[in-house]
Amino acid sequence: MKDLCRVAILGASGYAGAELAMLLSTHPFAKIEALSGHKEAGKEMADIHPGFLTQSLPALQRAEEIDWHQVNCVFSALEHGVLLSLMDVIPNDKPLIDLSGDHRHLPLTAMKAGRTWQYGLTEIFRDQLRAASSIANPGCYPTSILLPLIPLLSNGLIDADDIIVSSVSGLSGVGRKAALPTSLTESAETFRPYSLDVAHRHEAEIDKYASHAHGGAVSVAFLPHVSSQVRGIVSTLFLRSASHDKVRECLQDIYNRESFVHVLTASKIGQFMGTRMANRTNNCVMAVTEKGNRTVIVSAIDNVVKGAAGQAVQNFNLIFGFDEGTALPVIANI
Amino acid sequence: MKDLCRVAILGASGYAGAELAMLLSTHPFAKIEALSGHKEAGKEMADIHPGFLTQSLPALQRAEEIDWHQVNCVFSALEHGVLLSLMDVIPNDKPLIDLSGDHRHLPLTAMKAGRTWQYGLTEIFRDQLRAASSIANPGCYPTSILLPLIPLLSNGLIDADDIIVSSVSGLSGVGRKAALPTSLTESAETFRPYSLDVAHRHEAEIDKYASHAHGGAVSVAFLPHVSSQVRGIVSTLFLRSASHDKVRECLQDIYNRESFVHVLTASKIGQFMGTRMANRTNNCVMAVTEKGNRTVIVSAIDNVVKGAAGQAVQNFNLIFGFDEGTALPVIANI
Amino acid sequence: MKDLCRVAILGASGYAGAELAMLLSTHPFAKIEALSGHKEAGKEMADIHPGFLTQSLPALQRAEEIDWHQVNCVFSALEHGVLLSLMDVIPNDKPLIDLSGDHRHLPLTAMKAGRTWQYGLTEIFRDQLRAASSIANPGCYPTSILLPLIPLLSNGLIDADDIIVSSVSGLSGVGRKAALPTSLTESAETFRPYSLDVAHRHEAEIDKYASHAHGGAVSVAFLPHVSSQVRGIVSTLFLRSASHDKVRECLQDIYNRESFVHVLTASKIGQFMGTRMANRTNNCVMAVTEKGNRTVIVSAIDNVVKGAAGQAVQNFNLIFGFDEGTALPVIANI
Amino acid sequence: MKDLCRVAILGASGYAGAELAMLLSTHPFAKIEALSGHKEAGKEMADIHPGFLTQSLPALQRAEEIDWHQVNCVFSALEHGVLLSLMDVIPNDKPLIDLSGDHRHLPLTAMKAGRTWQYGLTEIFRDQLRAASSIANPGCYPTSILLPLIPLLSNGLIDADDIIVSSVSGLSGVGRKAALPTSLTESAETFRPYSLDVAHRHEAEIDKYASHAHGGAVSVAFLPHVSSQVRGIVSTLFLRSASHDKVRECLQDIYNRESFVHVLTASKIGQFMGTRMANRTNNCVMAVTEKGNRTVIVSAIDNVVKGAAGQAVQNFNLIFGFDEGTALPVIANI
Repeated sequence: MKDLCRVAILGASGYAGAELAMLLSTHPFAKIEALSGHKEAGKEMADIHPGFLTQSLPALQRAEEIDWHQVNCVFSALEHGVLLSLMDVIPNDKPLIDLSGDHRHLPLTAMKAGRTWQYGLTEIFRDQLRAASSIANPGCYPTSILLPLIPLLSNGLIDADDIIVSSVSGLSGVGRKAALPTSLTESAETFRPYSLDVAHRHEAEIDKYASHAHGGAVSVAFLPHVSSQVRGIVSTLFLRSASHDKVRECLQDIYNRESFVHVLTASKIGQFMGTRMANRTNNCVMAVTEKGNRTVIVSAIDNVVKGAAGQAVQNFNLIFGFDEGTALPVIANI
Repeated sequence: MKDLCRVAILGASGYAGAELAMLLSTHPFAKIEALSGHKEAGKEMADIHPGFLTQSLPALQRAEEIDWHQVNCVFSALEHGVLLSLMDVIPNDKPLIDLSGDHRHLPLTAMKAGRTWQYGLTEIFRDQLRAASSIANPGCYPTSILLPLIPLLSNGLIDADDIIVSSVSGLSGVGRKAALPTSLTESAETFRPYSLDVAHRHEAEIDKYASHAHGGAVSVAFLPHVSSQVRGIVSTLFLRSASHDKVRECLQDIYNRESFVHVLTASKIGQFMGTRMANRTNNCVMAVTEKGNRTVIVSAIDNVVKGAAGQAVQNFNLIFGFDEGTALPVIANI
Repeated sequence: MKDLCRVAILGASGYAGAELAMLLSTHPFAKIEALSGHKEAGKEMADIHPGFLTQSLPALQRAEEIDWHQVNCVFSALEHGVLLSLMDVIPNDKPLIDLSGDHRHLPLTAMKAGRTWQYGLTEIFRDQLRAASSIANPGCYPTSILLPLIPLLSNGLIDADDIIVSSVSGLSGVGRKAALPTSLTESAETFRPYSLDVAHRHEAEIDKYASHAHGGAVSVAFLPHVSSQVRGIVSTLFLRSASHDKVRECLQDIYNRESFVHVLTASKIGQFMGTRMANRTNNCVMAVTEKGNRTVIVSAIDNVVKGAAGQAVQNFNLIFGFDEGTALPVIANI
Repeated sequence: MKDLCRVAILGASGYAGAELAMLLSTHPFAKIEALSGHKEAGKEMADIHPGFLTQSLPALQRAEEIDWHQVNCVFSALEHGVLLSLMDVIPNDKPLIDLSGDHRHLPLTAMKAGRTWQYGLTEIFRDQLRAASSIANPGCYPTSILLPLIPLLSNGLIDADDIIVSSVSGLSGVGRKAALPTSLTESAETFRPYSLDVAHRHEAEIDKYASHAHGGAVSVAFLPHVSSQVRGIVSTLFLRSASHDKVRECLQDIYNRESFVHVLTASKIGQFMGTRMANRTNNCVMAVTEKGNRTVIVSAIDNVVKGAAGQAVQNFNLIFGFDEGTALPVIANI
């Protein structure tokens, strides 16, 4: 029997942190040893996330107060920028999975401050990840977009100069915070594009790994939107390619043996139910079709799971040698 | 003082029919003389739409039973295909505004069965509409897309071979009907593309008037989606153009004097709130920006108002010489 | 022809303030002369409420800066407590309609600081209101509860010691503010009772006017809930009475000639559609039935309209001698 | 190691059937051997519930075609009335857990057609259930209401003649079906009481077990409502009792050692988050307070889990001797 791997979750007061705690609570080989929350230090998880009221978990503490000798692996779901100030606190020999954007700008494999960082899009970089101990977990939009895009670019099946992506996310992508635009009264019964006047933080991440796959500079035309729902991302890609059937076949070949990535067959694309299909699972579901003179791919994930906590647990399973699907849900009901 | 114009609304049991009845109830120069509903004949409006319980309106009757001598104008909000079978019933001298798709395939101005039909995108074809008495009222998606697209094509500002549109609608676009996919349990908390495996009915309408404006064949790559909300459409257009500032200026010039079409200035595009901005109004609100190497336009309407009943009333006002904004709401609150 | 009544709206940045501005924009005898917003002074309405982008309204200013000579009537939609500090600023001869709770604790008719205040539940206190110039506009829950309750208590038809009310509101009742519990992520897909551990602010208001009608102390057992929607209140009253038919008849008799209060006949109670029936109207719709040994009344209003801005405009119409229904919507569609 | 228990799920095309299939797919000691669906026979689960696209499960078949020799236990999530016609088809020696209302009218323990039936409110009737092999699984509203009510009636802490319950459910309670009133367009942004003019099916079930606990006839005044959400029930009980603290203590004593029933301490009732707390878990969460002269209890469950499939799996675990919590989620996140 395997020893329990004792994990710390930094930033447990946010939604991704809570999802990590929820998933890892059901993990047969992991034990939650420490939870951090700067402003919430001293509180119980159930005081922040009432859905944890059944659980006996460690109280939240400041990251600086964690007894690192008791910890085998660190997940960080801290807000962008916060982990950087804690890098001296976390021992370098503890595997670290960072769900923020703080280390995604590094090269695919990069040394920084005594750690080797690896970008963690599991299905694409699995071999590199197996050897990694510091992981930059991908952003939610990039996960939904790069899973279809990278194989097509690598195989030269699409025009790299002409990639258009319209993405939609539920509001959990914004994180757990008090803000007027994300109040229910302002965000129910509306659908809105955003980042119209600024570049979205994920643009650079998408372009970087698209460029890496293409072997040359790629600049995706990317516009994000939010819809009146909590979870879920659908990215709609408009691509210029030889034939949409070839595109589908390429993706089917690549993802054929994957547990979490599903490419609908041509006869089933009418069944593509959007974010609903991936809700609360670690799945990414794609359908390929054509409209006008474009190949169109729609790609759905749950932003909190495959787009954050789920993929982090998948990477955790990978680097610790557990079955990659351990503790990761794959069935969605209403 | 103007005489009251007595109107008949065919298909009053649907959402567009109810919206027509609601708008026309507040119209100072119109009186609802007759309401039709085939299956619902004999019922009161409030038995179908409980929100009408305060109103004394004619009971629904079969269209064949309407006393046409009492009617000065006919609105038809019947389902696609139904009006065609009633064309012999409606006297040819009664102005007719058809909200269905039944007459949108005709040429911009066309004779058919003793009537001259005119496509009713008001701001674009106002001059032709003034003289018209039979109007093919535009579809909801086409309204949101053609209002920005036609001036740009007419002025040669965009590449007509490279138009990509990702549109999103609330579920009222599907109409008032019992169906599993549009039940709340199936359509809440999800965002889904549809018509992946078939051409959407509005594709031809969009292409036709885009082509008309361009003076040559245009085939838009168009994918519709539904989000978990009742009303509202946002269309996101990805265009190839010289400069997005030129695109914005063109649209601002064109729509500068319009009451219902608003192009946000460059400094205000961050305030684009999506469907919320146009909710329950006859407005179309647009913002222009750029992403990657594309000019991006987002265009929001309320599909039930500007995309259906509101534009129909606008056309009614136009042909009867009333102020074009009569009985049409222009302010949206939560 | 009547002169335009020039109105000031204090607290225009909130939802009730915006609804007042929306309703009064369509009022044929009113003109919005001034809008106040303390933190938002200098901004345009459309910068705060994007749905006003079509409107040319005065910019927001601090209440202290309003030129009161230009104002004939004042609406205050300020947060609770704020108006009190401005009472010296507003000339005593300007009629004042206060939508906050600041003056609801006063006696039904009361002198305070040079003004005579009247509680503004229009249908019940119309005669007193006609003579009033300072009005404490009722709270949203109290409006939905007192409209059915007061006639029954006045007529001795129910046991005053045994009144149980379970009420439900949309989240707009909380007001326009940034707060975690009212974010969409926290408040979608949930239904929650609140004020479990404290008395809700409206309890005293309900008890006070129930007691007034009964002629003795009444203490209602009242629990409020919020549901995942923007607008609407349903109050469910469980009462001990002789016969629910008598209760219905009493309410029908009382409200028979009212434009805004509707008591469903016995055969129509199955059509009670909840908040939907009153959505964006000034209506209050009730149905009476029995369950177990109790008479049950369900009462629906739009909290922002009949529960706030709409009833305020109704009172405005009353004191200025306009038709009471002027500028007040009465039809609800989806 | 335990042998796998091979289960059949009748009515797998509905939401409770799908939830059973989802829960049992993660059960370490169960294997889904057969799935039935009359109209859907021949289809794969993923053709009906797209969220199952990752799963290899038996295709749906008609119940008559199941090879019963391969089945150790039967779950029935058929619509009310359908199982009765299949009782001859299912061998009497196969344990049967019926989620419909078909057997809830029987006495607590009853013989019928060669089977002994037991009402399956697990925490209350655990001892009787251990010996049972035919279980009438409780309704969703009754589960949320009887868990607090039965101990209070058994211990004589409340007035049995004066029980008032206002319950609220998400729309999944209606089941998976095409119907206009449950379409998103009709049921979003509204809150509605229902069964105003008829008795709800669950009334008799509530009264029956309340009477059983009281030892005399009890008639609860019960009104159900639906809110704009998919899952979740909150029941609000207004009771006449000596002291609400005594009521809380009684419930805390009774449920102290239960995994799935949680009574909030007095200091935590302000944290009661409604249905959100129990979302997608098998939990029932209660808070006790007082309003007016009444003790008020709010009780939240997920109607699809504790109110249907989860409690059925809990009963399955009980009768097969598995840990009662096996395969039952207890943590809720957004």
